[in-house]
Amino acid sequence: MNSIKTLRSNKNYLGAFLLFFIGIVYAQSPKTVAKRAQPNIIVFLVDDMGWQDTSLPFWTKTTELNKRYHTPNMERLAKEGMKFTNAYATPVCTPTRVSMISGMNAANHGVTNWTSPVKDNNTDNSDEEMAKADWNYNGLSPVPGIPHTAYATTYPQLLKDAGYFTIHVGKAHWGSAGTPGSSPYNLGFMVNISGNSIGHPQSFKGTDNYGNIPGKTSPNAVPDLQEYFGKDCFLTEALTLEAIKSLEAPIKNKQAFYLNMSHYAIHDPLMADSRYIQKYLDAGLDAKEAKLASMIEGMDKSLGDIMNYLKEKNIEKNTIVIFMSDNGPSHRSNLPLKSSKGSVYEGGIREPMIVKWPAVVKPSTVAQQYVIIEDFFPTILEMAGLKNYRTAQQLDGESFLPILKNANYSNNERILVWHNPNKWTSSAAPGINYFSAIRQGNWKLVYSMRTGKKELYDLNDDIGEKNNLSDRYPGKVEQLSSLLSNELRKCKAPMPTFKNSGKVVPMPDEVEF
Amino acid sequence: MNSIKTLRSNKNYLGAFLLFFIGIVYAQSPKTVAKRAQPNIIVFLVDDMGWQDTSLPFWTKTTELNKRYHTPNMERLAKEGMKFTNAYATPVCTPTRVSMISGMNAANHGVTNWTSPVKDNNTDNSDEEMAKADWNYNGLSPVPGIPHTAYATTYPQLLKDAGYFTIHVGKAHWGSAGTPGSSPYNLGFMVNISGNSIGHPQSFKGTDNYGNIPGKTSPNAVPDLQEYFGKDCFLTEALTLEAIKSLEAPIKNKQAFYLNMSHYAIHDPLMADSRYIQKYLDAGLDAKEAKLASMIEGMDKSLGDIMNYLKEKNIEKNTIVIFMSDNGPSHRSNLPLKSSKGSVYEGGIREPMIVKWPAVVKPSTVAQQYVIIEDFFPTILEMAGLKNYRTAQQLDGESFLPILKNANYSNNERILVWHNPNKWTSSAAPGINYFSAIRQGNWKLVYSMRTGKKELYDLNDDIGEKNNLSDRYPGKVEQLSSLLSNELRKCKAPMPTFKNSGKVVPMPDEVEF
Repeated sequence: MNSIKTLRSNKNYLGAFLLFFIGIVYAQSPKTVAKRAQPNIIVFLVDDMGWQDTSLPFWTKTTELNKRYHTPNMERLAKEGMKFTNAYATPVCTPTRVSMISGMNAANHGVTNWTSPVKDNNTDNSDEEMAKADWNYNGLSPVPGIPHTAYATTYPQLLKDAGYFTIHVGKAHWGSAGTPGSSPYNLGFMVNISGNSIGHPQSFKGTDNYGNIPGKTSPNAVPDLQEYFGKDCFLTEALTLEAIKSLEAPIKNKQAFYLNMSHYAIHDPLMADSRYIQKYLDAGLDAKEAKLASMIEGMDKSLGDIMNYLKEKNIEKNTIVIFMSDNGPSHRSNLPLKSSKGSVYEGGIREPMIVKWPAVVKPSTVAQQYVIIEDFFPTILEMAGLKNYRTAQQLDGESFLPILKNANYSNNERILVWHNPNKWTSSAAPGINYFSAIRQGNWKLVYSMRTGKKELYDLNDDIGEKNNLSDRYPGKVEQLSSLLSNELRKCKAPMPTFKNSGKVVPMPDEVEF
Repeated sequence: MNSIKTLRSNKNYLGAFLLFFIGIVYAQSPKTVAKRAQPNIIVFLVDDMGWQDTSLPFWTKTTELNKRYHTPNMERLAKEGMKFTNAYATPVCTPTRVSMISGMNAANHGVTNWTSPVKDNNTDNSDEEMAKADWNYNGLSPVPGIPHTAYATTYPQLLKDAGYFTIHVGKAHWGSAGTPGSSPYNLGFMVNISGNSIGHPQSFKGTDNYGNIPGKTSPNAVPDLQEYFGKDCFLTEALTLEAIKSLEAPIKNKQAFYLNMSHYAIHDPLMADSRYIQKYLDAGLDAKEAKLASMIEGMDKSLGDIMNYLKEKNIEKNTIVIFMSDNGPSHRSNLPLKSSKGSVYEGGIREPMIVKWPAVVKPSTVAQQYVIIEDFFPTILEMAGLKNYRTAQQLDGESFLPILKNANYSNNERILVWHNPNKWTSSAAPGINYFSAIRQGNWKLVYSMRTGKKELYDLNDDIGEKNNLSDRYPGKVEQLSSLLSNELRKCKAPMPTFKNSGKVVPMPDEVEF
């Protein structure tokens, strides 16, 4: 992982400016509209969807959850492309979204928790023991000098500069209102429908006007969808219709497009998608379970509709579809994985990921190599044929194109880091609040900032992280502690402090295990 | 004026469908992105700006209002292009906006009053004597079958189909929420920023979040501008910045663009633009007058900023700029014109209009020929080089390209019609509520549906419509009554009924004068 300290206050942006002008790499100057020879690219991003919230098995076994849900279009996508069984995001939403379009690890960009709809609000819960870390709680910024933001060049901006028609539909949540990062128009998108600073919708229901109800409108009311007001049209469906509409012009004009199809589903509020709810109630699920299952199937229907549209327009062969979720399931089982959203255990970070690219990826392939959300940045630019692009930030992500070309590609030396120096929730579950973690090969070290405790797991034998091997392999603990600490130091990762002593929590290698 | 009966209920859309398939004219099938050889086109539309709300004189004399206001960029635009002294809109906003992008006269499209933010609300005030007309109170619709809408093909859609990059920024107000016309994405725009079903903003102030305030948000809160929340950024400025941002990609890609720069200013709520207010207070204006003057200068600054941007990007020579307002000033003087917004007298309908087109229009020219808002449709498509396009509706507008090529062009045979069978306001001023009017040459007939009274004016001698010549020229009254009645009959214009008798108000030619 490379790293530079990004802008956590407005004091240091001269450095960021210099980096930009020196240019880590040289700029290309594309002159014209991206031609159809360049592939179209769709990232289909789901919110709060766990590794097991699908009928498509990502484990070696078909689980009870796999049997509960119906996601035929995910199955279809996997048949036509490559399934990633070891794909990672961060424990919560904004860090994942910022990592994705900045190519930076969360420890590096410093947006380590979810960002508030309104700027200058540190969303961390208060804690008796720990004082809040100085993280970038205003989110991502495309310009330097905005306090408490990570300044970075986004890949949609680079695609747009290269002539791509760039579209964002749905949840954005890259920055707080009152800052440039709240507007997808500032992050490289030429079209933005329904994306702003909010992290979840006030309502998924058209009959609720998605929250735009006089006297009851909160900041979480979804913008831009008046057409569907008063109609029985679930938000997932409305966004899909809008996305397809936005593709018409670039397809007609033979201009390559990038679509960020970013669903608000299946985040709270838990609401029944009327098209699918009855079937799950009939199957014996309780009301909550059935609602969730209906939201999952509605999301899957969106994927299918988009795939069908690509086929109908005869562009499916030149269109890449990447399916991903942003973090683990919220307060729900992710078995066989341990814990859920917010956690650095596998249940909080391992995601269902699928990539379809007819020209490159063999159908029905499965990749075991681990990848992480910041890898999207260099991968997507490589897919688009962009080289020697210039960014304000140093990238942490690595292109997974070698994996797409060879499902058996293996690299057990690479290290992945998760860093969550925050109190996301007051109801602590395993691995939630003030944790870091590192994976190299099948080894994973989990570090508690609060207790200093270090746990070691062999994911090859123990995907559920049940058997802490730290006592058995002290050398491995020491080695991973050192690697993790080095990464956190290099990028000056935000760290909480102890209230009593006023001291910053120790690095993992400063603690005896 | 051609005319077909458009969809005022969902009963008649078979006819509209048939018309579409028969095809009034033959379709062209443009295949690629519109190249820079096609001109860029900007319509700069102001809301509620009167003919005299500018320092640029549109009359033969410089008026007191001309001296009060500062609009240097309108003066600059007029120096570089053609000023129209006899340009018309309709008395209120939605009818003008629908006429503009449908090419239909209001009597024909039947959207004769402003449309409610929420569908199925007839916005007419109640009246003791008159029952409400069955007008299209849900606005414009790009698809047939929507009750109480006018079904039409818009010119932005035809431009988009021809490869133009089409952008809407600001006030839309073409249709009510819950119908397709509420979304500019359904009306041919590829980008929409801040346009929906609302007719005015909750607030012009960034410090008010343009109305998006938890607990106080009304349907009139302006969407899509979170970036400016909490900042001292007047809505006019924010929309200008967004418009300029949206032009970057098409300019870079050498794709011709159409920009609908549609300001919420200078409509109510009356609010000080902090950049300009002091100067007008210092000049001795009272608080209300100064606020209005500041809003006008803020609007003019937007025009200048856009003109400067075109110059900076070296595309001003191939970019057409059309300046227009949508109706007369609201409850304010428009002297020497009679009455104001809502009225069929000149004060309600005559507008400041300027067209700059370096390739075609001679600088500093002035056209006296009368034109009307529905003329924008065929003119703009002719400017873009589109011929033989297919529309669902028959067009009423006529291209004013002959005028742009020859400022002395004259046609005194053409007739213009205004039709307002509505009660727009409970405080009646001259020519407001239940009036129709017709102009041919310099003759104008004003008809009151309530009283049956007909007035005749010679605009050549009497721009203030002070001297009713109906007794002196009964033949002219009869002739114009007949022409007006024929037009209203042909397009089955909506008409109110008398509550007592239940009878529809008589046509002008059914009333003795």
